[in-house]
Parts: sequence; C-alpha cells; structure tokens
Amino acid sequence: MKFSSPQATDTICALATPNVISAIAVIRVSGSSSIEICNSFFSKNILESKSHTLHFGRFVNERKEVIDEVLVSVFETGKSFTGEESVEISSHGSPFIQQEILRVLILGGCRMANPGEFTQRAFMNGKLDLSQAEAVADLILAQSKQAHRIALSQLRGGFSEKLSNLRGQLIHFASLIELELDFAEEDVEFADRTELKNKLNEVIQITQRLADSFALGNAIKNGIPVAIVGEPNAGKSTLLNQLLGEDRAIVSNIAGTTRDVIEETLNIDGILFRLIDTAGIRETQETIEALGIERSMQKIALSQIVLVLTDGQDKLQLEKAKKWVESLKIQYPEKTILLVQNKMDDSVSEDSETICLSAKYGKGIDVLKTKLSTIVKGDFDFENDIIVSNVRHQEALLKTIEALQKALSGMEIGIAADFLAMDIRAAMRYLGNITGEIEVDRDILGNIFQHFCIGK
Amino acid sequence: MKFSSPQATDTICALATPNVISAIAVIRVSGSSSIEICNSFFSKNILESKSHTLHFGRFVNERKEVIDEVLVSVFETGKSFTGEESVEISSHGSPFIQQEILRVLILGGCRMANPGEFTQRAFMNGKLDLSQAEAVADLILAQSKQAHRIALSQLRGGFSEKLSNLRGQLIHFASLIELELDFAEEDVEFADRTELKNKLNEVIQITQRLADSFALGNAIKNGIPVAIVGEPNAGKSTLLNQLLGEDRAIVSNIAGTTRDVIEETLNIDGILFRLIDTAGIRETQETIEALGIERSMQKIALSQIVLVLTDGQDKLQLEKAKKWVESLKIQYPEKTILLVQNKMDDSVSEDSETICLSAKYGKGIDVLKTKLSTIVKGDFDFENDIIVSNVRHQEALLKTIEALQKALSGMEIGIAADFLAMDIRAAMRYLGNITGEIEVDRDILGNIFQHFCIGK
Repeated sequence: MKFSSPQATDTICALATPNVISAIAVIRVSGSSSIEICNSFFSKNILESKSHTLHFGRFVNERKEVIDEVLVSVFETGKSFTGEESVEISSHGSPFIQQEILRVLILGGCRMANPGEFTQRAFMNGKLDLSQAEAVADLILAQSKQAHRIALSQLRGGFSEKLSNLRGQLIHFASLIELELDFAEEDVEFADRTELKNKLNEVIQITQRLADSFALGNAIKNGIPVAIVGEPNAGKSTLLNQLLGEDRAIVSNIAGTTRDVIEETLNIDGILFRLIDTAGIRETQETIEALGIERSMQKIALSQIVLVLTDGQDKLQLEKAKKWVESLKIQYPEKTILLVQNKMDDSVSEDSETICLSAKYGKGIDVLKTKLSTIVKGDFDFENDIIVSNVRHQEALLKTIEALQKALSGMEIGIAADFLAMDIRAAMRYLGNITGEIEVDRDILGNIFQHFCIGK
Repeated sequence: MKFSSPQATDTICALATPNVISAIAVIRVSGSSSIEICNSFFSKNILESKSHTLHFGRFVNERKEVIDEVLVSVFETGKSFTGEESVEISSHGSPFIQQEILRVLILGGCRMANPGEFTQRAFMNGKLDLSQAEAVADLILAQSKQAHRIALSQLRGGFSEKLSNLRGQLIHFASLIELELDFAEEDVEFADRTELKNKLNEVIQITQRLADSFALGNAIKNGIPVAIVGEPNAGKSTLLNQLLGEDRAIVSNIAGTTRDVIEETLNIDGILFRLIDTAGIRETQETIEALGIERSMQKIALSQIVLVLTDGQDKLQLEKAKKWVESLKIQYPEKTILLVQNKMDDSVSEDSETICLSAKYGKGIDVLKTKLSTIVKGDFDFENDIIVSNVRHQEALLKTIEALQKALSGMEIGIAADFLAMDIRAAMRYLGNITGEIEVDRDILGNIFQHFCIGK
C-alpha cells in the first residue's frame, strides 16, 4: 500500500545520533527540498551531485559564518532510506554545532522530524512494509543475539514473505468461491470442499504456529526474568557466580539499560535472562522466614522461571523445597518452577522438573543453562522458524485464526459461498494489516511510530 | 613535519558515535587495509569503488550471518580525514550491532583505535598541523558561540598562518645574520641593526598580544565564573531572574555538563558566564553575617568577576558595600570587583567600577551585561584578533618572547652574530612547536591526543 500524506512532501530534519559530546554527529534531512536547502548553507554546489556521493566542505549559517567542516552525503529520490531525496550531514560531535546546524536548516525551510518519521516515510513510499518498519525499532533495541536475529529477519522481509504466502493461498480460495457466486444460478461448486477444508486447516496451522511463537519472541525481546530462591545456606551466591562468571564482559556491556528492579543479566545461546533482584540475594542474610519469604515471593511474582534452590544433601531442606515447588506450581501455573538440588557433587542429573548440580565445583552448570535455554525455546528453531515478537502482529494472527475457523465451521454446516467468502476476506484483511498491505488506520500508524527515536 | 610512526600502517577502528541506543551509529576504519577488511564482511564489492562514494548493503560476520544493513563510505588514501585509506560504516544505532561490527573488524585484522588516534594520524600525515589537531578537541567541547569561533578559526588554520608569518620573519633575520657569519672575516654587517631591532620589537609585540589573548581564550573556553553577593534584601533573586530570563532555553540546553559547583549559566555575546552557587543564592535566607559571610567568601574565591549587589537607596547598606568592594580589591587584586547599586529606578548609570540599575523594572540590565562582556573581552576583537585558548600554546609563546628579548638585549650590548642567531633559532623552535612544524616530543604528542574521545 502506498498513500500520500499531507506531510509527505515537506522536508524534515533531525539529529540521528545522541545529543552529547562525541567524535561524529549525523543530521538527517529528507524531503523534496533536502538538497536545495542544504546546498544553500554548504560551501560546495551539490545541486547536480550524483546519488550516494560524499562531499567535504564548510557548513555556514545565514550570515555565511562557518559552523563546521562537514561531510555531506547525497541521496536521490528513490534511492534513500525514506525513498525521498535525502541528505546526511556528518559534523564534529559538538552539541553546540548540532544545534546550530539544525537551527539553520529550519531557517532554510526544514521542519524538525517527529519520532520515527523517517521510517514512517520509508513505509509511506513503499521502501518497507509495516512489519519491516516496526523491525527497525526492535533492531535498535535488541540486546541479545536472538533478539537481534528476530528483528533482522523481520526487517529483511522473512515474516512478510511468510504472510504473503498465506494471503496468496487465501486469495486463491476466495477467488474460487467468488467464481461460484458468479455462476450461482447454475449451482456448481468449483472448489472441492474437502480439499478446501484441508488447505484451510493447513493455513490455520501455520498461522497458529506463528501466533504460538509470540511467547518466545516476546520473552527474547524483553529478556526472561528468572528468580532464584532458597534458604540462605542453599548456595545462591555460589550458583550466581558460576552462572555469571564467564559472562561478566557481556553483563557490564549491557549495564546502563534502565530497569526499575535491580538485576544482573545472563546470556545463554544468545538469549537474555534477567536475574531478578540478585543484588538483594547476593548480599543477603535473609531467611526464608519473615522478611525473607516476602522478598522471595516478590521476586517470584516478577519472574517467568523460578529456580527453587536447595541443599540436596539436607533431607529436611530438600523436603521443604519440594513442598514449596508443589505449592508454587499451583499458585503460578503459567510459570516454570524448577527444583535445583545443589551440593550434589557426585550425582549431576536432570529430569523435566529437577536438576542436581554442584555450584561449588562447577558441575552441572551447563546442564542448568541448557535447561533454561530449552525451556524458553520450546520446539522453536531460530534457524528455520519465523518468530513473532510484536504484540500487534500477535493480535492480528489470532484474529486471522478466528476468522478462518469461522469459515471452517461454516463449511461443516454447509453455509452459503458468499458467507464463506466474507470470512476468508476478513482473514486476509487481518493478515494484510500486519504488513500494511491494506489501508491501516492512521491512529495505529501514529501509535507505531511515536515509540521510535527521533532521527529514525 | 611528517614522520612515520611504527603504528602508522596498521588499520584501526572505533565507534565514532556514543555507545547508546540511537537512530544511527558510525564506525570509523582507517589504515592501509581498511577497504580490504571491510570488503570481506560486506555484501557488495567495494575494492574498486571510487573515493567519496556510499554503498548500501549487508554487513556480515565470520559465518556470513547478517549483522545489519549498513551504508559504507569509502575514502581513498590522501582524500580522507586521516590522510589514509578509510571507511565509515553507518549502521542502526544499536549497541549490540556496534559491538558485533567492531568484533568482526578486529577479527578481520583491525585494531581498536586509541583516543584521538584518527586525529593523530591526520597530523602525522600532514592533513592538519598540531594546533589544528588540538582545535578538533576544543571544537567538540565548545559550548558557546565564541568558544566555537576560537576553536574553528584555529582548526581552519588562522592561528597557524599567523605563526607561520612570524616564523617567516624570524627565518629572514636568522638567514641575514648567518650570512654575516659566512663572511665573518670581512667584518660586514648585512643586517642593519636598527632596522633589525625595530623588526624584532614588532615580532615581540605581535607574539605578546597573542600570549595576552590567552586569558580571554581560556576564560571563554571554560566559561567565566561570576559571583553575585550582597545582603538578603539587595535583590539578588530579581537580578538573577532578569539576567537569566530570556536565556532560559540556552541554559537548559547546556545543562548536563558536569561541574562540582551548582551553577547557572548565562550567555552574553556568545560568551558563557557561570553564576557560581546560585542555587544557594536563590533560595537563601542567608545574612551577610555568620554563615552568610562564609558562603559569600567561598563564592568569591571561586569566581573571576564579583558583583557586590546593594540597595542603592539604603545609605547604610551602600556604605557597607563600598567598604566591602575596597577590601575585596585589596584581597583579590586579580579579580574584577564591581559595585552594583540596585533599586536605582530613575538613575541607571555606569562607570568603570559602579553600575546603577533597577532589577525590578528591568532597567540597566543591558548595561550590566555589556559591562560583563566588555570586562572579558578587554581590547580584543573576536572578528579580527587571533585568540589563543590552549595552555601549551601560551607557554610556547612566552618562551618565544623570552628568547627574542634575549636577542634584543644582546643586540643592545653588541653580542656576536652567532649568539644572536642562536637566540632567534630558539624562538623559531618554540613557535614551530605549536604547529608541530619541528619535531615534537612523542610524550607531548601522547599527552595531547590522550584527552581526545575515542573515535576522533
């Protein structure tokens, strides 16, 4: 879908790099007067420059005073990220210079871009479909290998292609059925109902798998919250050190992301696990009783996976831990509750609900890590599966399934072809909404792009 | 001066934008294998690309997995910032992607650049002289129009040209004098001693004016600390609001710079004034007595200009303020102490040491601002004067003057031409040190560039 917006022809500008002191800053300009406006403040003539060329020169203000020596990149209409004529100005990374250049560009006729407006224009101009545009924001925010992989695959059109296949099949059904409508008086059935049902079931199954992948995609995008709880002498600190040990570098690199709960992060197979409130755990003198219980319960409430850690050699403690696991399973059926028996130096093992390890001697740590990764991945395969990570897409997929199931049950009771066609058309619309192939509500667009950074 | 360094041929890489989430990130690569290394991880062949061209494609890792879709800029040897073959990779502004690209570049044979190493290479390769290289760092840090102007003028070679003129004159003297040495037996004087003295005096004067400008240049670079002190009812809050009023936007933009003392900033004629500890002043119930005096004295000690504010209609307060001004002048002869008589609604005036104004009615505020700006500028003119802002340059200028004065007083007592030549040669060396025209100590170079950002 391409539609023209009243704003689509004006020229927008924004800082595309953070507004702090750094080596280089980049200012983006896009719109039909980009080159003309930049040219009027640049020491070289770029009016006739070829697309994808760089020009070193002086950027000046309205009084011809030099603001900075800059590199200007020129992009022709149709060949830029937005699809519009664009210019990128690479200056020294001084907030003063950045502000001056933006001030002068606005004086020259540019408008400050809204958040995500460059990407929105790329969508409007058919350079990206809507799910690809959404992937741009996810890609920038991706903190782990798998989150990065999902976003990049979506940006590169993997998801769009899958959806396009599904829509293609539905279009085929719909056209067969509508053909029947044209020949309604003759009472023919062009579409073999049994084959149609089978095909429809197949589409539903594929769509269902995509919808199911959302739990994984969402977990990967946000990191999986894990709580480790247990009595003070169960060995939490030792286990944490073992888990985090070789991962310190990655941990410190990710630090600085803002979250309210104090936590450390752990990267297993490119999946980010967030160890809830471990600061509290690590210094703790807490007991399971009194304050301890309350803090543990808070951690559990925030987590998706709970490791109930116990001294496996201490019969009493083990029994208490087992009971705790049972009661947590009842209280939180949606969470994964694992019993982890520590201090099992000679009997590292694993079954579906219990892991035996020795944190002190580093035995069984890999088993635990693999277990955590397996719990998250389920039967999905990052190499071959499309993973959905966007809640808007998930909702559209569920509505698609609902419409298709309505069509299917309609066929069972032999409803008229025109009702059948309506259900299938509805399913197609829901799918089309994801990529924006069909007209998308302006409010939805606004909602999608307002969460982007400025300059993107 | 160009000299080859053992490091100069390897290929360096660094992130040139801040390592945070943003729309765009830029990674710089420079050195003789830049294009080759980048080419091996890029989906397009850039080995034969022309300089100053941009290429959109996929940047991949060592397993050919896509890291990101990027724009790659190619610069030929001699045509880049560093003077070396260079590449800039413009990716999505994701810290994960940035780290991955850097990791892969290092795998391909790049080395992480040291702070300032790109600029240091530009110097080594004769793209910038040393004072221009230093100006790059100043330019990035410039927070006000005049600080920006000084740095930019230095970057663009204004200072270098002035120094080059001075050195040219000294070379002329030195060669005349050395010609005499060659004909020493014939006892001729090629150089007219009176003319030589006049010329030497002229060079000393010009150098002295440059050295004198450092007080201004340094003040502008760092902002000028101003203290406003006075009795509680003198009208400090009203005056501050008047001073800061129209400047709020600029103030909030500059906020976030790190300084230990709480302060607000004021921009007059593009010069940054830092109002020391105004948070304290603005909420204050302090009296001149007791705690009040102590706090005022702390503020005064930190400032360069002191405004002693008084109610000009209150004879007693005015007399106390005048006495205070006198004693501060004796205690701090290097500071500028101004008496500001407030509440003078009908008699705004100004002389060299006193300003009468009405903060309440906004009368005389401009007079005070002009006064502040005039005190800082002295008889220097930003349009026409070269302003020195670097302490290394200041030291070299003072040593130059010292050597030339030695030559001058030598001439007075008729010392031999070879001693004269030595002094003039010494002066030339000091001047040459500023731009790095003569060999500069590696430690000095290290000291200069280590204060740069990474990626610059």
